Amino acid sequence: MLSPFFGELLGTFTLILLGDGVVAGVLLEKSKAKDSGWMVITSAWAFAVIIGVFVAKAFGSPDAHLNPAITLGFAVQSGNYSKILTYIPAQLLGAFLGASAVYMHYLPHWKETKDKGKILAVFSTDPAIKHRSSNFISEFLGTFVLVLGVYSIFSPQITDLTTPMGILSVGILVWAIGLSMGGTTGYAINPARDLGPRLAHSILPIPNKGPSGWEYAWLPVLAPLAGGVVGGFLLKVFFGS
Amino acid sequence: MLSPFFGELLGTFTLILLGDGVVAGVLLEKSKAKDSGWMVITSAWAFAVIIGVFVAKAFGSPDAHLNPAITLGFAVQSGNYSKILTYIPAQLLGAFLGASAVYMHYLPHWKETKDKGKILAVFSTDPAIKHRSSNFISEFLGTFVLVLGVYSIFSPQITDLTTPMGILSVGILVWAIGLSMGGTTGYAINPARDLGPRLAHSILPIPNKGPSGWEYAWLPVLAPLAGGVVGGFLLKVFFGS
Amino acid sequence: MLSPFFGELLGTFTLILLGDGVVAGVLLEKSKAKDSGWMVITSAWAFAVIIGVFVAKAFGSPDAHLNPAITLGFAVQSGNYSKILTYIPAQLLGAFLGASAVYMHYLPHWKETKDKGKILAVFSTDPAIKHRSSNFISEFLGTFVLVLGVYSIFSPQITDLTTPMGILSVGILVWAIGLSMGGTTGYAINPARDLGPRLAHSILPIPNKGPSGWEYAWLPVLAPLAGGVVGGFLLKVFFGS
Amino acid sequence: MLSPFFGELLGTFTLILLGDGVVAGVLLEKSKAKDSGWMVITSAWAFAVIIGVFVAKAFGSPDAHLNPAITLGFAVQSGNYSKILTYIPAQLLGAFLGASAVYMHYLPHWKETKDKGKILAVFSTDPAIKHRSSNFISEFLGTFVLVLGVYSIFSPQITDLTTPMGILSVGILVWAIGLSMGGTTGYAINPARDLGPRLAHSILPIPNKGPSGWEYAWLPVLAPLAGGVVGGFLLKVFFGS
Repeated sequence: MLSPFFGELLGTFTLILLGDGVVAGVLLEKSKAKDSGWMVITSAWAFAVIIGVFVAKAFGSPDAHLNPAITLGFAVQSGNYSKILTYIPAQLLGAFLGASAVYMHYLPHWKETKDKGKILAVFSTDPAIKHRSSNFISEFLGTFVLVLGVYSIFSPQITDLTTPMGILSVGILVWAIGLSMGGTTGYAINPARDLGPRLAHSILPIPNKGPSGWEYAWLPVLAPLAGGVVGGFLLKVFFGS
Repeated sequence: MLSPFFGELLGTFTLILLGDGVVAGVLLEKSKAKDSGWMVITSAWAFAVIIGVFVAKAFGSPDAHLNPAITLGFAVQSGNYSKILTYIPAQLLGAFLGASAVYMHYLPHWKETKDKGKILAVFSTDPAIKHRSSNFISEFLGTFVLVLGVYSIFSPQITDLTTPMGILSVGILVWAIGLSMGGTTGYAINPARDLGPRLAHSILPIPNKGPSGWEYAWLPVLAPLAGGVVGGFLLKVFFGS
Repeated sequence: MLSPFFGELLGTFTLILLGDGVVAGVLLEKSKAKDSGWMVITSAWAFAVIIGVFVAKAFGSPDAHLNPAITLGFAVQSGNYSKILTYIPAQLLGAFLGASAVYMHYLPHWKETKDKGKILAVFSTDPAIKHRSSNFISEFLGTFVLVLGVYSIFSPQITDLTTPMGILSVGILVWAIGLSMGGTTGYAINPARDLGPRLAHSILPIPNKGPSGWEYAWLPVLAPLAGGVVGGFLLKVFFGS
Repeated sequence: MLSPFFGELLGTFTLILLGDGVVAGVLLEKSKAKDSGWMVITSAWAFAVIIGVFVAKAFGSPDAHLNPAITLGFAVQSGNYSKILTYIPAQLLGAFLGASAVYMHYLPHWKETKDKGKILAVFSTDPAIKHRSSNFISEFLGTFVLVLGVYSIFSPQITDLTTPMGILSVGILVWAIGLSMGGTTGYAINPARDLGPRLAHSILPIPNKGPSGWEYAWLPVLAPLAGGVVGGFLLKVFFGS
């Protein structure tokens, strides 16, 4: 039953359960983690990536991408596009299910929360200032740093791909991107992380929810994919396939 | 004198001394750590697990479960139930003694603290919103992620069970569960962590204490055990015994 | 020129420069780190230990105790008392010099700070509630956990004494003790950490300083030493010399 | 295309993008990270160093200095000055480009921010109290600890230069210096980190910007270089070249 598909699915499920979970904890009324701040949000997302990668590897995906922009970027870098059709649907499905688990986990807290914006923010990102070209640049740059960083961490002379040190270092990379670049658009930097939960927000019977912000939904999908592709292309230029 | 019983006892003692200790530091009046927030609480519990595991391993329990839900879950997974009768009493006794040490450590602070709810919260968990079925799901899900994560971290292709990297990774797992899933019920995710200190609260002559919340006590025992059993069963289905 | 004496001296210098330094940053007026809280203080002290240990090892002390209570505790455990006369003076001198460097580093900030209690707190610990027997128990217990934890981390089956993982784990141990047990007495848990800087406070021409709190000074010396001795004795009973 | 020049350039670019990025996130109006505090700033700078070092190593600079004071200090220690002319221009150019990327990343936030001091603080450091000799000592001491710490971490008997553990430990060193010594001058401790972004501030068309603080600019260049040289010289005395 172990397979790359299932590994990516369960890993992304864990990523989103823990990642959207911390936003729920910080934003929803009566939560014990209410208003606990940016450090809580960014560290939990970093740890969510670390745990998600452990789970994905254990359940059959040694790549543990959990992110279509990473899958596409490394496909461009390596010239091997065969994983895209398996990985990306698994990541989207896992993200949808992870967001649904957050809905269940915080069930009595939705009714207490009247702010539609906060409820949507548990699931999907929204820019601090609406400015489409700048928002695109922010998501593009964040994902570009992610691809560059992951490749650097696992470059042959530094970290063995199979050791947990590399996994922890990727967590630190995501922590850094969140702390330093997340203030503008909330660092989706992962199309599955934004689109899967937005679908869940749209479908689930969440008390007090408003619209799902579909007019913005394309940006945290396309900008990370563009950042991944450009990053992967530059890596190919520098390092070859 | 080293034995799995004593290792589990002293490891769980350390876990609860450091874990309940941080709650005392944040909640009790006149503490230098007063009101220092969710990051302080969740990181200290994560470090408490890391140090507790080091202690348990050094004093004779290479498993270092410190948690009846882990012991039961891995018994279901492996089909070997022989450790339950040794480990679980050791964990409960260690948790009781650890909570008693917190009582002694913060001795002059109880008299200064008039809020009965805060005094109980040093010892045992209490849900943010009283809603039994949702509270059960929260504790069930949190423990399920714990079992899944621990198994993934130590799956043979990733981390050698004997290296400190695995221990640190388990700490990050507990940190993530606390940050992201703790807002609802305070993440007992460990029957010994809740029941042992609740017994201590009930028995010790703590100034200003109120009732020990026994009407809720069954939930952070049974829900984590259920999460452990279901997690262990799924691991058995996927990976075999 | 490398020697255990110089290693302990320079390591403890670094420990106190970084440790007392964070208290100065959080307490002194006009500091950019003003009022940044308990997490900042406890993490910086943990990192101060990590960096101090690296320095001590590099400059000739492979033990890197930096703490007379550790030196005495492990002397009791091993039955080898020969290091005491070298290590403890080096630790005290290093702590005195480290506190003097903090005085120089924050030089223009003393004049801005009118609160005598805050100025003393940069150098030495003071209990949250004056209660000598409880304060003694707090410092005793904290140091006991420190000795127990250090021994467990480096117990032969877990961490190789020469790897940085062990050093990082000791940092996490000190982080945990600070977060969870520091709320009562400010966790000296190290006679040199308290006495050396108190001497510096007493001698240096610090603007706005008040008395050096000598009536309390014996406690954060004797209680940690007692915790170290009892911890070392128990380790000897369990593990032999 | 991989070379020490390009490695230092891209590594310092990443360092400054993530480092100046977190200051922008904390200071600029409407940022999601607004006012999130000292812990956020210091941890992001630490992670920025970690990721910058990974990138520099992967792209051709196994030294990964990212800092002229480190380059000069280790030149003094080793007696080999040949790297200076390659590394320092690469570091300055990388820092300038990294600050320019921060300008782009936070593009719509400059217009919202009216405080000229905050806008300059995103790019360059400024002392908490204007006192030139003390400010010089602060930057000198911070850089001295940096050089001492880096050398200790990688001293042959402790950490293998090629393992990620050493890179993480350097991050912890920078974290500690920031937390404990950053309150006075904002810990430039790196001439490229201050001068490159100050040039960018001076040249870029940033809305609401004021003067670039050139009257102070010499200090965070010369004091770190002095700290590096003195540190390197002492290391040479102790350890030889």
